[in-house]
Amino acid sequence: MTTEHAKRRKALLAEIFHRKLDCLLVTHPANWFYLTGYTGESGALIVSRRGITLVTDGRFIVQAAEETRGVKIELQQGGLLAATGSFLKKKGLRRIGYDASQLTVQQLKSLKKTLGGRWRGLEAGGLVERLRMLKDAQELAVMRKAAILAGEVLEDVLKLIKPGIREIEIAAEIEFQMKKRGARRASFETIVASGPRGALPHARPTAKKLRKNELVVLDLGAILGHYCSDMTRTVHLGHASKRIRGWYRSVQVAQEAAVDAVKAGVTCGEVDAAAREVLRKNGLDNYFVHSTGHGLGLEVHEDPRIARGQAVRLEAGNVITIEPGVYVEGVGGVRIEDDVAVQEGSREVLTRVTRDLIEL
Amino acid sequence: MTTEHAKRRKALLAEIFHRKLDCLLVTHPANWFYLTGYTGESGALIVSRRGITLVTDGRFIVQAAEETRGVKIELQQGGLLAATGSFLKKKGLRRIGYDASQLTVQQLKSLKKTLGGRWRGLEAGGLVERLRMLKDAQELAVMRKAAILAGEVLEDVLKLIKPGIREIEIAAEIEFQMKKRGARRASFETIVASGPRGALPHARPTAKKLRKNELVVLDLGAILGHYCSDMTRTVHLGHASKRIRGWYRSVQVAQEAAVDAVKAGVTCGEVDAAAREVLRKNGLDNYFVHSTGHGLGLEVHEDPRIARGQAVRLEAGNVITIEPGVYVEGVGGVRIEDDVAVQEGSREVLTRVTRDLIEL
Repeated sequence: MTTEHAKRRKALLAEIFHRKLDCLLVTHPANWFYLTGYTGESGALIVSRRGITLVTDGRFIVQAAEETRGVKIELQQGGLLAATGSFLKKKGLRRIGYDASQLTVQQLKSLKKTLGGRWRGLEAGGLVERLRMLKDAQELAVMRKAAILAGEVLEDVLKLIKPGIREIEIAAEIEFQMKKRGARRASFETIVASGPRGALPHARPTAKKLRKNELVVLDLGAILGHYCSDMTRTVHLGHASKRIRGWYRSVQVAQEAAVDAVKAGVTCGEVDAAAREVLRKNGLDNYFVHSTGHGLGLEVHEDPRIARGQAVRLEAGNVITIEPGVYVEGVGGVRIEDDVAVQEGSREVLTRVTRDLIEL
Repeated sequence: MTTEHAKRRKALLAEIFHRKLDCLLVTHPANWFYLTGYTGESGALIVSRRGITLVTDGRFIVQAAEETRGVKIELQQGGLLAATGSFLKKKGLRRIGYDASQLTVQQLKSLKKTLGGRWRGLEAGGLVERLRMLKDAQELAVMRKAAILAGEVLEDVLKLIKPGIREIEIAAEIEFQMKKRGARRASFETIVASGPRGALPHARPTAKKLRKNELVVLDLGAILGHYCSDMTRTVHLGHASKRIRGWYRSVQVAQEAAVDAVKAGVTCGEVDAAAREVLRKNGLDNYFVHSTGHGLGLEVHEDPRIARGQAVRLEAGNVITIEPGVYVEGVGGVRIEDDVAVQEGSREVLTRVTRDLIEL
């Protein structure tokens, strides 16, 4: 087992002890990977002071044994939660912590049924997520590379962007280039949204051809060494009108203001407000229909949420996105997004691509 | 609203009526797409005799209005389930059906909290999934195209397969070729597993280079027009040994036997047994560590499961995979997988690529 895994398990066990749990049930893939290195798609990890056990099925037994150290692998008979329940019962583990946002109603029922009357299920959500929020130097180094990789791909693909090319062609090229540079895959379905389609913040790329005088929103991220990057740039085909330049400039200043607000001790709500306030002053806050950002790491959306009124305070080691935008129905959208690592009194912007308006 | 959406909603409403529900809560993306065409990533669809409402947040409001017909769009304030609860309360909908395998413990709690004492939550799982199992002619036509597309990509990529190329390079090329041919994306992370890595049924492609005298398992699928394909072929680099040929031949005969067993009225367990029996006769059943197949459609894993002892009977309109394999730790794996549409007294194999051993 690596030093990192040992450190993470130790921190989690302290929390399990503190909450007087016999064990914690970990059913979320990113969480079990963080604790053990197991990359399979199915399983239930049971973390207790008496040891760590992974219950999984025949498809993943060999893989689990190869990928983990210090983890007992238990071959699942029957359904996953029933098998997990049987194991817990056999081991006499009764005070069982679980995450209510990661367990389905049916899974909890299946667990209850197997365990009978003598167990006690205790909600213990977000314990691993809380550890994952604080990236160590090694994680940060990988995330920096993932962010740089996405930026390089974007800069490369800009050459292709001209009237006549289809959104899906650009998206396919972006994801191919990522893999060519060593990414496992895109961290989410790449967004290439041109003209009016840019008004949909989560538009999927379509067969629509790019046209002159359109805005094009490009939102992309790569998974490199298991960690995600996430960035957005908006370009304009041809010389932008005064109105478009106004929107772009407002988003750019809002994004800069939010990035500048990032440092340890500040609340997530304050960072969100920094972006929102700039847009408000420019009469555009009603066109900013989502929150300013989100945590980033093994998953593309993690804690903390950078949203209105969030009282959670940033800590050194958090990595978040800052991505305000404006969306005008029937016309288009502008969004600028960077990945930012929180430091004491400062920050490191991981994304290294110009934020100025690019006219192609 | 298209004729298909109308037909599906009508069938679902009949079931809702039959179960004396005031409404059904649909929180699974493939299900709401099937009923409405909405492709957003967040939302809760409420289906009742008084109408269909989609609760979603600001990111998806415009998109939802564009993509759906006959659906009321309700802008979500606060959390998704709290907003959904408020809507249900306002409308006086009290007997609320939900799918326990698709609602988290936390979501159910949030719903309960908003609705207070006067509601009744009723488990009503799999209602939309049951409709989705029966593909109509239009769906089948799309799935046929998706299967053919994957096959064409595989045949094209075979040219690249030689000693020295890396698994990830082949996987990247496969996914790029899919998109070039109009697929939205791969329906799952493409598997290219060479040599001993092939013994892991769900191996991720790595930087490992292919070597002479290795088996290479290629498992790929494309999403075309929202529907998934899923196929596997295993090739050998160089002339295969007698032992390898023996494994291959056994899997091929097992796969053929299971395909031949497919027709309306047969149980899924019987289809699974047909493959397993061939491998048993060849002394390889212990090396077949997963089930024979699964349903396929809007999702890459759907009902029905083609597994040991499954009593569910196939119906004309089901589309399933048939994919037995043998996995020998330290050496490699062989798997052959086709997509098969169930007909009365017969079947249509959608995948059109040779199943004979390809030596490269």
